[in-house]
Amino acid sequence: VACLDCGVAHYRLTLAYDGTDFSGWQRQATRRTVQGELERALSRLSGGVAVSVAGAGRTDAGVHALGQVASFGLPRAWDADELLRALNGLLPSDVRVLDSRAVDPGFHARRSAVAKLYRYELDIGGVRLPTRRRVAAHVPWELTPGPVEELAARYVGRHDFAAVASTGSDVKTTVRHVLRSEARFEAGTLTYDVEADGFLRKMVRSLVGGLIEAGRGRRSADELMAILGRGERRDWPAPAPPEGLTLVLVRYGPAGT
Amino acid sequence: VACLDCGVAHYRLTLAYDGTDFSGWQRQATRRTVQGELERALSRLSGGVAVSVAGAGRTDAGVHALGQVASFGLPRAWDADELLRALNGLLPSDVRVLDSRAVDPGFHARRSAVAKLYRYELDIGGVRLPTRRRVAAHVPWELTPGPVEELAARYVGRHDFAAVASTGSDVKTTVRHVLRSEARFEAGTLTYDVEADGFLRKMVRSLVGGLIEAGRGRRSADELMAILGRGERRDWPAPAPPEGLTLVLVRYGPAGT
Repeated sequence: VACLDCGVAHYRLTLAYDGTDFSGWQRQATRRTVQGELERALSRLSGGVAVSVAGAGRTDAGVHALGQVASFGLPRAWDADELLRALNGLLPSDVRVLDSRAVDPGFHARRSAVAKLYRYELDIGGVRLPTRRRVAAHVPWELTPGPVEELAARYVGRHDFAAVASTGSDVKTTVRHVLRSEARFEAGTLTYDVEADGFLRKMVRSLVGGLIEAGRGRRSADELMAILGRGERRDWPAPAPPEGLTLVLVRYGPAGT
Repeated sequence: VACLDCGVAHYRLTLAYDGTDFSGWQRQATRRTVQGELERALSRLSGGVAVSVAGAGRTDAGVHALGQVASFGLPRAWDADELLRALNGLLPSDVRVLDSRAVDPGFHARRSAVAKLYRYELDIGGVRLPTRRRVAAHVPWELTPGPVEELAARYVGRHDFAAVASTGSDVKTTVRHVLRSEARFEAGTLTYDVEADGFLRKMVRSLVGGLIEAGRGRRSADELMAILGRGERRDWPAPAPPEGLTLVLVRYGPAGT
């Protein structure tokens, strides 16, 4: 029996991972996933009882995290620091627990979240550097900063993001509130930070696809915002590749639930 | 027949690599090395003729490069840009050619070098981040910046570095001239840059081992410089691990030979 809402003690973990060798966050029967590795380690610490974990963001294959949050109940209480050390002893080196704390049973990593911050790193021009190939995307073209910065700023606000949502998203609404959206160029790298009250599937990578299109001068910010306004998914540029994306942090309300 | 000094045309390549999955630079019969991969690709471009390559620095297993330099002769002349593109088409993604140019037959990547710059990155304290584990070393302890910066500055100058040379180095002299040696702390990371007219085996990693010892307060800069002065290898701290080290650039004289 899964133990997400059962258990005598509830915990919240902050996790970092290198997503390169994972088939994403979400548990799959035959593939290596972050949720799968975490649940297996928690089950081992719980005498074999199945433990079911909720994650704040369902990161795709190849996407990294510096501040993913997971919540779950366990059949017995643990000292939070002891739980952190035990898990880091069992987990593979491409996923680490950075923080562990006991929480109220009402806390849920995804439902209690009020905002998430993602970062996308894109190396620009020249030859792709081997030491960066797992943690940054690369385009061989030059990008003009002005249009990229302008478009990033225009993403801010409450919009219907249907045009940048992956098909197959099972959501009630495609309206999201982007609280922060900033592109900066430094030393041949574009770093894009975007924070919103929630994200649709592949939304950040599609927003970055738009930034690249604007930076290459293939479409203006006006044209791209018009496509977004019409919700025409087929006209929007392809999503940028996963390796540039990192879930940086998840925000919760003052009460943490 | 090897073709280092033969051939009608001579070239100099600048290479970047992620050293994690290589058994170092130097060719080995049964292991994957950077020199081995490069020579194999050059041989394929030369109709199967064996090509022997000289590298500026014999980086160890796990050590990276942003500016390794290789020189060699080929049995026929190539356009330098075409050679770059052909090699990047044949080489695995963890090694890339960044620059390619024709050179005088007298140019030799190692013998013509006048200085090399290495960088060491060390993440300090807390839990090791998975996305950094291939390209930075990690210590769980806090390090005090003052003694680290002081010791780094005192490495500058012409010294006998016998105490920090790996045993088995087959060199005429263990005296090297350190031209630059700077440690800086920023955002939980120690970045150490060291440039010298030459390096002994494991010298940079041993110098970093000394910096860590000073930063932990286990030995003072005075004590460590005294050990260096006496050349007592057994008293010097252990070398820091390879994954933090990167060969950043190799300098040549104005003539480039």
